[in-house]
Amino acid sequence: MSDIRSAEILCVGTELLLGQIVNTNAAWLARELSLLGINSYYQSVVGDNPERLLAALQLAAGRSDLVMITGGLGPTQDDLTMATAARFAGLQMQMHEPSRRAIMDYFQHLGRREVTENNWKQAMLPEKAIVMPNHNGTAPGAILEIEHDGRFIRLILLPGPPSEMQLMFRESVVPYLEKQSTSRLRHLFVRMIGIGESAAETRLMDLIDTQDNPTLAPYASEGEVVFRITQSVSRPDEPDLTGEMLAEVNRRLGEYIYEVGPRTMPEVVKDMLAERKMTISFAESCTGGLVSAAVTDFAGASTVFRGSIIAYDNDIKQNLLHVPQEILEREGAVSESCAIAMAMGCRDIMGTDMAVSITGIAGPDGGSQNKPVGLVWLAAVGPKGSQTRCLHLAGNRARIRKVSTLNALDLARRFLLT
Amino acid sequence: MSDIRSAEILCVGTELLLGQIVNTNAAWLARELSLLGINSYYQSVVGDNPERLLAALQLAAGRSDLVMITGGLGPTQDDLTMATAARFAGLQMQMHEPSRRAIMDYFQHLGRREVTENNWKQAMLPEKAIVMPNHNGTAPGAILEIEHDGRFIRLILLPGPPSEMQLMFRESVVPYLEKQSTSRLRHLFVRMIGIGESAAETRLMDLIDTQDNPTLAPYASEGEVVFRITQSVSRPDEPDLTGEMLAEVNRRLGEYIYEVGPRTMPEVVKDMLAERKMTISFAESCTGGLVSAAVTDFAGASTVFRGSIIAYDNDIKQNLLHVPQEILEREGAVSESCAIAMAMGCRDIMGTDMAVSITGIAGPDGGSQNKPVGLVWLAAVGPKGSQTRCLHLAGNRARIRKVSTLNALDLARRFLLT
Repeated sequence: MSDIRSAEILCVGTELLLGQIVNTNAAWLARELSLLGINSYYQSVVGDNPERLLAALQLAAGRSDLVMITGGLGPTQDDLTMATAARFAGLQMQMHEPSRRAIMDYFQHLGRREVTENNWKQAMLPEKAIVMPNHNGTAPGAILEIEHDGRFIRLILLPGPPSEMQLMFRESVVPYLEKQSTSRLRHLFVRMIGIGESAAETRLMDLIDTQDNPTLAPYASEGEVVFRITQSVSRPDEPDLTGEMLAEVNRRLGEYIYEVGPRTMPEVVKDMLAERKMTISFAESCTGGLVSAAVTDFAGASTVFRGSIIAYDNDIKQNLLHVPQEILEREGAVSESCAIAMAMGCRDIMGTDMAVSITGIAGPDGGSQNKPVGLVWLAAVGPKGSQTRCLHLAGNRARIRKVSTLNALDLARRFLLT
Repeated sequence: MSDIRSAEILCVGTELLLGQIVNTNAAWLARELSLLGINSYYQSVVGDNPERLLAALQLAAGRSDLVMITGGLGPTQDDLTMATAARFAGLQMQMHEPSRRAIMDYFQHLGRREVTENNWKQAMLPEKAIVMPNHNGTAPGAILEIEHDGRFIRLILLPGPPSEMQLMFRESVVPYLEKQSTSRLRHLFVRMIGIGESAAETRLMDLIDTQDNPTLAPYASEGEVVFRITQSVSRPDEPDLTGEMLAEVNRRLGEYIYEVGPRTMPEVVKDMLAERKMTISFAESCTGGLVSAAVTDFAGASTVFRGSIIAYDNDIKQNLLHVPQEILEREGAVSESCAIAMAMGCRDIMGTDMAVSITGIAGPDGGSQNKPVGLVWLAAVGPKGSQTRCLHLAGNRARIRKVSTLNALDLARRFLLT
């Protein structure tokens, strides 16, 4: 954005200060602003206290061109953000007729006849505000364009509940901010598995350091390694250079890339199965249901996923999945042979085109010299035979289970590609 | 804490500013401080930039007695928090010999012979600092007691990774802060299910508003309703009054209380089964593995949990769990009869003392007039017969799956109590 040089994020809410809720809004807004090419240099939290909020607004407006404010737009006496921002900006509060009608419609839609007196308060907005409708709740948002100490400043006020805030940001804030600038950003997200973030960064370091349009930057998201390619364009017909950068990343790290786009690993696997009209089932031991839960997180999973057997106990592996007793006795439950037998048994019982198994030691107990905590065997079986993978994972129980889950899905993906 | 009137939390890290990670440290610290009776009035985030960090320290020290600082203690050039805090406090940096040895020991323990030059930087600490060892990493923490504008201020510097920060807080910060005061807080956590937070608050409102020692306050934690009873005591032999308050809460809302203490629902169920030397299995449909994953989140789950069948497809319900075809045809998969049949089939196959089933419509598709999205049937079967529960849930797919999971475990708990 040409004339927005610095932004900051100010979150209002006593529940944040008490640690009752984690501030996911700040991270979400920071990331969305960076996708628009706007850097934020500060994040702050204050409680529902008008004096401290006023001081926070003064501080923010003194150092940033754009102040994103979330929270405190609700109907209760404690919700003072809109009135405090108006006071800061020297603007009168007045009834905003379209917002009043929207609140009435909202309650009628919910089947409530009476609107409590409090709720009208949410239609009181600063004069001259650009009002943003709330399509997931009752509190409208507002953009205030003001002069502060001789500088032009924008205050953007959004509701605190993430579902309301995110929708309003996408519907109203993004178009507003895009209008402030003639340039646009094009993004590509490159998702990898099987390589750590720092190892990937090392192999891309020269591109990260020297390229300025498009740029390449790590885009950390929990448990995954993601890089972002960003090109700034001034005209829509400018040639797309992101593909060239992608080709170079692909040349260096192609073997680890599983998606160029928005989808996470379970979605990629689900879509690959759907394209091939294939079904899958899982035989899970140490992951205890996490793999199946990840796949069924998405609506429409039923077209590719039929079911799973969680065989936590060795008796279940033997009696239900028909893992031969000799394998359990000679090689143990955490072995390549057992993983293959589990997947084969599961595929038979579930009648699916393919099956994937996971058997390992998630710890903290149960490890031995030969089979330490973090040893995990995976197998995929299908009409074209089988593939296995052995993991040696570090970290605690939660991490071992999570990384095993991602790898089980990646094994399914590679199996489908061969 | 007698002489700490106001605290604030300052988190340092460019990855926070970019929204690459969510700031869970701020919420965790705010909650832990409030358990010690210390209120925090501000949270801020700045990047790894010494000038902006210095300005943030000045601001914080001007308005708070205690400043908790996390992040930027690592070995890289970007990690400048310790040096900047020393500069702010007017203290020299010097090599701290015990920390240098601890870093050497840490790397030897990992089997790495050579310590990179960078790592010694972490042993450079401000003179006069109270040094806090890091038992989950290499960066020590520090407490600086300084005078600022004629006021006595404490800066407490902690590492950014949550596992290092939390352990150091518990091992070193809590004892330090407790020494600053003669009073202590006694806490009881009361966990409920089956009632919404606002409904519970309404029925406890008079106690929340009028009682001052012990106090009663909501203690929100995602997906659960938790209240905290807190008594401030000046001498260890002071009579415990938390029990009286608990009795009153119990009198009003006892039917919803499932735990007075630290355990979450899956842990409570796991422990109840272990006490009774009983085993469990699950037949999951719409939860797709979430219930089993919740139980196996805890080490030692294998003593009570043998396995599960995820019967997403109706064929699996019929062929593997032996749900009679008539039930599926006449009453459908989301029905009380089907839930009971699923649990009975699962108990047979898994050979467990009891089994719990979950079948429902998680949405967004698949609902109908008679069976809308959010309809979920649960059944528990065991040697003493069966119990069922019907849920009518609002919200999106993720919420419906989560609330169903909690309720399935609660049904197991109530079944065990009868």
